[in-house]
Amino acid sequence: MANNTLKIIPLGGLGEIGKNMTALEYGRNILIVDAGVMFPEHDMLGVDLVIPDFTHYLEEKRDWVRGIVVTHGHEDHIGGLPFLLQEVNVPVYATRLTAGLIELKLQKHGLEGKVNLKTVRAGDRVSIGGPFNVEFFHVCHSIPDSVGLAIRTPAGLVVHTGDFKLDYTPAWGDPPDFGALARFGAEGVLCLLSDSTNADNPGFTPSEKTVDEGLDRVFREAKGRVIITTFGSLMSRVQQVIHAAARHGRVVAIDGRSLEESVERAQSLGYLDIPPGVLVDLQTLKKRPDSQSCLIATGSQGEPTAALGRMAAGRHRQITIKEGDTVVMSSRVIPGNEELVSRAINNLFRRGARVIYGRADNVHVSGHASQEELKLVLSLVKPKYFIPVHGELRHLHAHAALARQQGIPAENIFILENGHVVEFDDRGARVVERVPGGWVFVDGSGVGDIGPAVLRDREILSQDGFVLAVVRRNPKTGQVEGRPVIITRGFVYVKENMDLIERAEETVVNALRRNGKDPQTSIRKALSELVYNETRRRPMVLPVVLEE
Amino acid sequence: MANNTLKIIPLGGLGEIGKNMTALEYGRNILIVDAGVMFPEHDMLGVDLVIPDFTHYLEEKRDWVRGIVVTHGHEDHIGGLPFLLQEVNVPVYATRLTAGLIELKLQKHGLEGKVNLKTVRAGDRVSIGGPFNVEFFHVCHSIPDSVGLAIRTPAGLVVHTGDFKLDYTPAWGDPPDFGALARFGAEGVLCLLSDSTNADNPGFTPSEKTVDEGLDRVFREAKGRVIITTFGSLMSRVQQVIHAAARHGRVVAIDGRSLEESVERAQSLGYLDIPPGVLVDLQTLKKRPDSQSCLIATGSQGEPTAALGRMAAGRHRQITIKEGDTVVMSSRVIPGNEELVSRAINNLFRRGARVIYGRADNVHVSGHASQEELKLVLSLVKPKYFIPVHGELRHLHAHAALARQQGIPAENIFILENGHVVEFDDRGARVVERVPGGWVFVDGSGVGDIGPAVLRDREILSQDGFVLAVVRRNPKTGQVEGRPVIITRGFVYVKENMDLIERAEETVVNALRRNGKDPQTSIRKALSELVYNETRRRPMVLPVVLEE
Repeated sequence: MANNTLKIIPLGGLGEIGKNMTALEYGRNILIVDAGVMFPEHDMLGVDLVIPDFTHYLEEKRDWVRGIVVTHGHEDHIGGLPFLLQEVNVPVYATRLTAGLIELKLQKHGLEGKVNLKTVRAGDRVSIGGPFNVEFFHVCHSIPDSVGLAIRTPAGLVVHTGDFKLDYTPAWGDPPDFGALARFGAEGVLCLLSDSTNADNPGFTPSEKTVDEGLDRVFREAKGRVIITTFGSLMSRVQQVIHAAARHGRVVAIDGRSLEESVERAQSLGYLDIPPGVLVDLQTLKKRPDSQSCLIATGSQGEPTAALGRMAAGRHRQITIKEGDTVVMSSRVIPGNEELVSRAINNLFRRGARVIYGRADNVHVSGHASQEELKLVLSLVKPKYFIPVHGELRHLHAHAALARQQGIPAENIFILENGHVVEFDDRGARVVERVPGGWVFVDGSGVGDIGPAVLRDREILSQDGFVLAVVRRNPKTGQVEGRPVIITRGFVYVKENMDLIERAEETVVNALRRNGKDPQTSIRKALSELVYNETRRRPMVLPVVLEE
Repeated sequence: MANNTLKIIPLGGLGEIGKNMTALEYGRNILIVDAGVMFPEHDMLGVDLVIPDFTHYLEEKRDWVRGIVVTHGHEDHIGGLPFLLQEVNVPVYATRLTAGLIELKLQKHGLEGKVNLKTVRAGDRVSIGGPFNVEFFHVCHSIPDSVGLAIRTPAGLVVHTGDFKLDYTPAWGDPPDFGALARFGAEGVLCLLSDSTNADNPGFTPSEKTVDEGLDRVFREAKGRVIITTFGSLMSRVQQVIHAAARHGRVVAIDGRSLEESVERAQSLGYLDIPPGVLVDLQTLKKRPDSQSCLIATGSQGEPTAALGRMAAGRHRQITIKEGDTVVMSSRVIPGNEELVSRAINNLFRRGARVIYGRADNVHVSGHASQEELKLVLSLVKPKYFIPVHGELRHLHAHAALARQQGIPAENIFILENGHVVEFDDRGARVVERVPGGWVFVDGSGVGDIGPAVLRDREILSQDGFVLAVVRRNPKTGQVEGRPVIITRGFVYVKENMDLIERAEETVVNALRRNGKDPQTSIRKALSELVYNETRRRPMVLPVVLEE
């Protein structure tokens, strides 16, 4: 290993690269940026959460970790902390709101008071220990108190944007710190890691301000109640709704536990500006005239168990959707959730509500920078090397193309996969190896205890169920005793298919008679054949031969 | 029942209304418009196809059906015909290409030669039998030979647009027959049924011509092979690709059986204009230089088993994606398929291809009319009553809003659900009843033999698998004999959880000892508890008590 070597390793992300966790390694020192969770994709059946697979990378390097810096308080950047901190209990650096949301999370995992959580402000420079000095700089994103990171190391300055957009008129706080970006550029940046989420989107992402206009129009036109759903973590949107409601003489209630908790935390930390009397509880809201009421509800992704999902399905105990209600979907649809969201919207229409959803109504904008913004950042920061992060491979390619257009040589741009290690030293930079940088499934209380084999079984079971045959055999004579018992679930309606079940019993007995030496195989084969010929389905077929 | 009564009933559609099948009833006469299939939604586990539930409606009215008219040759309008024709074998009226594609379908279901398939042309007026006279008029859609229907009945004229867009420069044939629409308007239209798919989309849908420009750019810039995927049924897109390839001196091969069949059928019927020597087979293509090659492949929805899916996964026997390849996704992503499509795109990038996908590249446009087009149709046809169809409830609401803006009284607009019956007579029009208008699942060879209970089991199995306990008991003494056998699939890795399995065995024995009277319940309860406490998972728990 050459002297003065810095390694950068994107570690976590499901489809996306370097989204949920990134490591910087210098000598025997490691700095970790973010530790988020991901939500399982459709074919990760029964999986509750997905966390970055950090254990392999950290296995022999636990003692090297000097600290964790967190860019902002969204789940995909903080949700993995409770898992990571059980492995390495090091100081965590975050801005005030982010720290508040991390505390909430630690409480739920029984880690309250056990973690050294250090609050920083944008502008602070903090020596993390070892060779890392981190300057936090203000960026705009869909949650207040988001920061980017300027990480000074003996090998050079690394700038990590975190999630950001260049919003000149943000819903919360100032525009991003363009001055800092220019200053880093002047100082000389070894490597830039920049948010690629919207790198295939031409132009600029609209300002949060445009949402104010959209909301004003909704409130102006609404005769009855206004019910708005958004992401539980989109705190600046909650702020916008509260301001808009107040402007139009409405009180606001929050419905949904996750949202209530975040709002309470943000409010207690001073990150929500709520005019006196505007925020009320649901009971108080219900006593006010519809034309003076606004409800912010969870369920932006159509989740049937969230507040809006229950309203849509007519299963909400306190709110019944009716003619005159206006429902606003103030969020994007996360890919994979389209069906659930469509169903919720259709059901709300069915119950008489007017539903405002699409892009044309200006009730939502993205929190991530589009192509023109990304170019401006590249142009200000002028990095020697560039690593597009936060995005799927296709987004990284789009971002890389922008960087090439701006004159960064192709060989200085690294399109990585999670676990790829880029090494920087006096001779240049290169991808040197790959560490396990995948993910781990959390299912119930189990972390990492299910994998491809279990998921494959769940997949088969989900498609055609199973057929199980229990047969008893005399171990001495090899004779079948009694009738086989056939049990199926998820395959056919048993009551309407007694014929098939009876033939399955016969098939089992005959199979054993023909080939008693390998009873498992012969039953499985015969039964699978029968079932496929009769139904063209391929359930899991399981023989149980009892011989005691 | 009043005299001169006409009923209109949207029958099939999954989420969408009147998409796949519609019935018109006059006296004891029924005319059916289209009979399509739908593809299952994510939570319809293991379901292969979904067809309209026509059996309930037709149960006592089989003899009333006079004929089936088909608007165009897409799966969601013709795929249900083989199922319907087994119930009512009546004449089917379709234009030439549509009839050709229906024949293909009948062949696959062994119905070749058993159906009276009558070919019509746009402009034809056909007396279907009974009171129905149908005029077929030319519309533009993403497959050639699409028609709308002007159905003359004693109660008045009903206009059904079918799927359409108002394309002034279509890829195939003439612009839509505006003259016919105006003529119907002058004649007086009782009721219009119009395509609502894009009713929440402002402006005009771009012309197919814009795709020519997008494709030209792709071919101009591509150095190596061009591989284009589109819907198997998007025949006009195939035509556009063939023309573009020919313009740029490339030969074209088709990869994927469904596409090959449709192309062959369309070509033999004269609906594809293929310059001599341009269409070659895959073997011939591979001998040509990359810069002279174009491949049209199935797999636009990221299906892992389709041609493009196999290329993306590196499992295609003949095509290996490499640096220099350009892959074009010339299709929209059907909601619900986003994950699969993203994965395919990312994998293609991973293998070195440049992938052209998003809207900005003009490689795909919708085949359905947007708001300005819908307004023009309403304005030409000037219907007394209006039924928005082909769309989810939210789209129907958007379409209805346009109609109200154009002066159609709200009470003359019917936003229906499938199965709602609208009755027209001399006194006016009203929704009178609801017939079962849902859908039926096709799974393997079974039609309608699985339903909610089986799907619920599949859902549970898909999430946490199952735990099954087989225990033998002496029927006389009630004593447990031998050890219980625990079988699990999709739950945990058994090998790493032998402890848990052993405790499950003990739990079963103890449960039986405590309460032997209701062994099923006591085992299920005890075992569920153990499993949940240990894993926080809720697999299906199945006790099997053998007492013989």
